[in-house]
Amino acid sequence: MSSFNTDPKTYEFNHTMIRVKDPKVSLYFYEEILGMKLVATMENPNGKFTLYFLAYVNAEDQESLKAKSNDERRAYVFNRPGVLELTHNWGTETDADFKGYANGNSEPGRGFGHTAIIVDNIEEGSMKNIAFIADPDGYWVEVLNRAFA
Amino acid sequence: MSSFNTDPKTYEFNHTMIRVKDPKVSLYFYEEILGMKLVATMENPNGKFTLYFLAYVNAEDQESLKAKSNDERRAYVFNRPGVLELTHNWGTETDADFKGYANGNSEPGRGFGHTAIIVDNIEEGSMKNIAFIADPDGYWVEVLNRAFA
Repeated sequence: MSSFNTDPKTYEFNHTMIRVKDPKVSLYFYEEILGMKLVATMENPNGKFTLYFLAYVNAEDQESLKAKSNDERRAYVFNRPGVLELTHNWGTETDADFKGYANGNSEPGRGFGHTAIIVDNIEEGSMKNIAFIADPDGYWVEVLNRAFA
Repeated sequence: MSSFNTDPKTYEFNHTMIRVKDPKVSLYFYEEILGMKLVATMENPNGKFTLYFLAYVNAEDQESLKAKSNDERRAYVFNRPGVLELTHNWGTETDADFKGYANGNSEPGRGFGHTAIIVDNIEEGSMKNIAFIADPDGYWVEVLNRAFA
């Protein structure tokens, strides 16, 4: 690990990547339902995949991102924590033989558990402080009340 | 989704959870090699598992955490982004029949891809701007140069 020759205090946990079957469906889920913003995309025609980078963006950043190029937006998502990267391998959304991705919580494929977001109020109904919801591919998203801890 | 009745602008992407076979080995990896700090733990004797919450903690927070109880540390990790949660189901570390967890990048179990951290300098040797390393369970950790984007 001698390659990491700078101070770990400057490191940041930047992103978590999950594969998705259909970006339209997943972007609707993470943007419209969970309130993240799609900040940047990276299309790779040779590899036949597209990457979508989402984050919770504060009002100030959102305003300044408006005038920015995709390259500048890319720089933004690679310089902050709390980024979700969705990988779309082209074709899965229309492939009848595609069996879907493992969400990591059952065999085979158990390992990855979930992502989690903090919200300010999930006290409605039966959900008190914590809830798990499934994203379109079945990945678990934990929804935590900020006051939970 | 009517339960999320507050402003998504206040939401935060809090953590990513992965299961680990042996917390000693994984904590060494994430603390000593990758420079994260173990901030809080939650032991669940009934469920026979322990949760370990790690994050990159700045000097100021690190100083103030010193005087804090585990409950207060728990509040801290549930109020910030960039947290990694390791789940240890007791016994896997000594169970000869335990086959290990899927890292999400091969079949069966493909879905979850990797976590990623930003570092300031990985220009040594053959690694220029990006590198993938494997954690003790085989999960991929992407190491990104901050100047990559």
